Amino acid sequence: MNAPDKLQELLTLTREPFPASTKVHVEGSRPDIRVPMREIALTNGERVTVYDTSGPYTDPTTAIDIRQGLAPVRAGWIEARGDTESYTGRQRVALDDGGKNEERDGGRIEQLRAEAAGLQRMPRRAKAGANVSQMHYARQGIVTPEMEYIAIRENGKREWMREYLQDAEREARLKGNAMGARIPEIITPEFVRDEVARGRAVIPANINHPEVEPMIIGRNFLVKINSNIGNSAVTSSIEEEVEKLVWSIRWGGDTVMDLSTGKNIHTTRDWILRNSPVPIGTVPIYQALEKVGGIAEDLSWEIFRDTLIEQAEQGVDYFTIHAGVRLPFIPMTTKRRTGIVSRGGSILAKWMITHHKENFLYTHFEEICEIMKAYDVTFSLGDGLRPGSGADANDEAQFAELRTLGELTEIAWKHDVQTMIEGPGHVPMHMIQANMDEQLKHCKEAPFYTLGPLTIDIAPGYDHIASAIGAAMIGWMGTAMLCYVTPKEHLGLPDRDDVKAGIIAYKIAAHAADVAKGHPGQRARDDAMSKARFEFRWRDQFALGLDPQTAEEYHDETLPKDSSKEAHFCSMCGPKFCSMKITQDVRDYAEKGMAEKSAEFKAAGGEFYIPIQPAKG
Amino acid sequence: MNAPDKLQELLTLTREPFPASTKVHVEGSRPDIRVPMREIALTNGERVTVYDTSGPYTDPTTAIDIRQGLAPVRAGWIEARGDTESYTGRQRVALDDGGKNEERDGGRIEQLRAEAAGLQRMPRRAKAGANVSQMHYARQGIVTPEMEYIAIRENGKREWMREYLQDAEREARLKGNAMGARIPEIITPEFVRDEVARGRAVIPANINHPEVEPMIIGRNFLVKINSNIGNSAVTSSIEEEVEKLVWSIRWGGDTVMDLSTGKNIHTTRDWILRNSPVPIGTVPIYQALEKVGGIAEDLSWEIFRDTLIEQAEQGVDYFTIHAGVRLPFIPMTTKRRTGIVSRGGSILAKWMITHHKENFLYTHFEEICEIMKAYDVTFSLGDGLRPGSGADANDEAQFAELRTLGELTEIAWKHDVQTMIEGPGHVPMHMIQANMDEQLKHCKEAPFYTLGPLTIDIAPGYDHIASAIGAAMIGWMGTAMLCYVTPKEHLGLPDRDDVKAGIIAYKIAAHAADVAKGHPGQRARDDAMSKARFEFRWRDQFALGLDPQTAEEYHDETLPKDSSKEAHFCSMCGPKFCSMKITQDVRDYAEKGMAEKSAEFKAAGGEFYIPIQPAKG
Repeated sequence: MNAPDKLQELLTLTREPFPASTKVHVEGSRPDIRVPMREIALTNGERVTVYDTSGPYTDPTTAIDIRQGLAPVRAGWIEARGDTESYTGRQRVALDDGGKNEERDGGRIEQLRAEAAGLQRMPRRAKAGANVSQMHYARQGIVTPEMEYIAIRENGKREWMREYLQDAEREARLKGNAMGARIPEIITPEFVRDEVARGRAVIPANINHPEVEPMIIGRNFLVKINSNIGNSAVTSSIEEEVEKLVWSIRWGGDTVMDLSTGKNIHTTRDWILRNSPVPIGTVPIYQALEKVGGIAEDLSWEIFRDTLIEQAEQGVDYFTIHAGVRLPFIPMTTKRRTGIVSRGGSILAKWMITHHKENFLYTHFEEICEIMKAYDVTFSLGDGLRPGSGADANDEAQFAELRTLGELTEIAWKHDVQTMIEGPGHVPMHMIQANMDEQLKHCKEAPFYTLGPLTIDIAPGYDHIASAIGAAMIGWMGTAMLCYVTPKEHLGLPDRDDVKAGIIAYKIAAHAADVAKGHPGQRARDDAMSKARFEFRWRDQFALGLDPQTAEEYHDETLPKDSSKEAHFCSMCGPKFCSMKITQDVRDYAEKGMAEKSAEFKAAGGEFYIPIQPAKG
Repeated sequence: MNAPDKLQELLTLTREPFPASTKVHVEGSRPDIRVPMREIALTNGERVTVYDTSGPYTDPTTAIDIRQGLAPVRAGWIEARGDTESYTGRQRVALDDGGKNEERDGGRIEQLRAEAAGLQRMPRRAKAGANVSQMHYARQGIVTPEMEYIAIRENGKREWMREYLQDAEREARLKGNAMGARIPEIITPEFVRDEVARGRAVIPANINHPEVEPMIIGRNFLVKINSNIGNSAVTSSIEEEVEKLVWSIRWGGDTVMDLSTGKNIHTTRDWILRNSPVPIGTVPIYQALEKVGGIAEDLSWEIFRDTLIEQAEQGVDYFTIHAGVRLPFIPMTTKRRTGIVSRGGSILAKWMITHHKENFLYTHFEEICEIMKAYDVTFSLGDGLRPGSGADANDEAQFAELRTLGELTEIAWKHDVQTMIEGPGHVPMHMIQANMDEQLKHCKEAPFYTLGPLTIDIAPGYDHIASAIGAAMIGWMGTAMLCYVTPKEHLGLPDRDDVKAGIIAYKIAAHAADVAKGHPGQRARDDAMSKARFEFRWRDQFALGLDPQTAEEYHDETLPKDSSKEAHFCSMCGPKFCSMKITQDVRDYAEKGMAEKSAEFKAAGGEFYIPIQPAKG
């Protein structure tokens, strides 16, 4: 793609549906529970539905005005619970967007903000004394509409899978190995409630993010992936910032973390949240650091607290909080090859060693819980001491922090605050299982959310692959969400192509984990693909793949003619000899009896292939 | 890269050394044992040596004339053994290059053949009654120069690793998990001999391929990777065909399979073998099929036998022989989702069902052994019934064939013929271990050589990633060589970029396996990389990576200025805040005592970063 094309794409929202695909909705027990799925119409009449993270953007029948935001699908549910109130909210101050920035950019951000004034909402919070977390409801025995929505979404449509599910029922060989997970045949709303009540799953869904299409993160559900976005140094348009989100969820991002730093982060976050059908996570200390001019030691609990409320009012669904980076653990990092590599972890380390005080996120943890439950923000307890190299994997500092995260999980659960735990990082293959074991033990099955892990350190430029190996393995072992790594990891900031490459690598890892765990129906899409391969349905192969366009382009490089998409051979063996074609004859032969068929075959001239005109050009 | 650039590259051999790298040779017990390694000179004075598959092509001090071929490093060793004789050899016939082809291409191939007349060698074979396999020598207690060469090569230079090896000696945490492999601290020539004698490792090294730099494939050695090449439909030049090989070994192909079909395959193979420092494998039935006009049922033992001799005389180092595809197993494939997907397997299935006879490779297996031992060609017993989809993984047909390969291994070993076993294919993660277990059990630790396996089926365009996951895992479990998969798998024929993408993905998988197994010194390169990261030595990071050029390009996209390669920050956090920099201060702080350092730090202004000029443009 050349530069002008790329620019044009950046300036336009990608709204094209996937090939052969239609957005369908499965209705729940009430008409306002409408769960979106992507239905792929195969050329043989099969209708395959797949989990769809892309939101209304891939639905051409939905009009979208990103200056007004998406329809607030959850608004009625939140209101009906009667435990929240609207209020004026915190006053936005210039510092939220990086201070004197308005002057420097000649009023551009002010102008963009005015253009998107329609995105402003009056925030809600829990009424005094109320707790509005999904965990709180779950523990009261309440099945929320969000939970029912999730049950439908996780199951997918089972009708089309029947043919493939029967294979697994017939043959023990095809059963998965859940590695300790307990995945029921059918996910019920009650099962969702029970998992959330136990803390084994979270539903990141801030009451101020009613646009979210509810999803769940937990070891007994489909493995999810996260992708990251950040604001541009120079914001050129609202579309550009929203497109980063749209692009991420198009390829399968289940959640998106907004890791913006620098200018305009408050305003950009408004644009993203109001237009996001997936949960948005942030690392609030990044913005807090901007507010103190990048000087870590000037941070304070007050500035941090104010930032939490600011972001909670905007609707951020989960916060990375590095409360486990405790002062006594800092010296444990000094013998490391790569020290502290987490940005949040090192900000707090700097603060602690400057003041010689305990981490203020640790000392104020219960106050943070109070904020979380007033908006239903989910904790993502950050692993500020994660290893930055295989040499530092599973060391004293890492596991000391993990045990602390376990203690903090119990405190959060005491407040009915949803909690997940962040994990590494850089871990050689043979040391991955210990990470999962320790996490399950100390954090009592709170969902694990890992960055990779990267299995080796010598693949700069290819760390999406080095880490997809670790991600697939830890996903199989029980990790609930995998944070993607792009090819630019360790080198630079990912562009659009890198983001896509990272997401596809992680969709592969997550799907490989689901298949290995034996998640009901997850192998069905693979089986539909295999059937399409065996039957030479090329267009169906593209449509069933994770990236239909790339698959078709690659195919066309070798066999560009349209007619070859119907051909009964593939580009590897060519028309003269095709192993798949032979197999069909073998099957026929075995059924008829071998000797009889042999004679018949020879008599018929012994031709296996269908002669076609060779492709020209 | 645009089309003319690409064409230019195709027409030129890639001979550029890697950045900061020099070819060095480690001498063995005699001056003609000179083992090549790549030495990377780091900016801090460290000299890191890495395993080098690229041959003399990356050594600018070696003159190469591909019309004469590489220096025959093994010629003296072969001659000195006194158990072989030169002979006239089989007469080349037109059919070897696809019959009437010379007429069709206007004499072009004849002209190219004349240009490369200097590649013709008189073949050697074992003297009557002799067995010239490395296995035979090993079982006689003879340590060949090849074995000594391999021991040096596998160990690498240990001097520079000392600092990193000490970490693992100090901390049990850093020990690998060899999963049943027994990898000694130092590989001795005697260990190599013993492993070859037991059949647990093979040295593919045909006596007619004296140009090969000896290498070993076995579970107690470094995990190897294979890449595939094929001839062009229209051969434009000798360079073009040789460059495919040069490109593959540059990025790390330990062996290369020539899967050519169609025209000019005999002549192209001459060009490749005479210019290849790595073992070359083939699937002889592909050429045999060409000789009978692509009509599988017209194949015969005689035509096949003639092809084996033709290729053995040229110097092919290992043959894929699908002798385990037995007639009784064919009906077992009829219930499969994707039947028989191996080209060799389906050719033989077609032959068997047409004639209703047992596979002639099975019935003539001992005669094949006689040929193998006369030239020291290694068996790669093909898995013609490997699964072509996750749905068919580990089924009756696959494992029936694997057990047969075990029986054939014993026959081959009776003849002292070196043998490895090919494996799948498509296998979900949780079913991979069973493949390794069955293989070890039935094939008695003969080296396993797998294609991936692909862990899912829905990633066309990204199957190098879907399969690198499975390859890393099965490599850790004990697979000795991993056959690469490119992004074009299932879609088309790989181009130059696809070949590189496939090889890098497989170098990642193989290295991840070596690190997990705890292969001595393999983590040292990762540790050197981590140290370079911590010390912001950007150029060293590029040089230590699997693909220095791509790493540097990615870095430069974000921070293009040359000065930023010296900068004490990276592109992720920028100059203002850098977690790695902070860690260095943390380390200093912990050493000095926390309270004292805190005061000093504040007094000094509390700055962590080195102010630099911001990068322009």
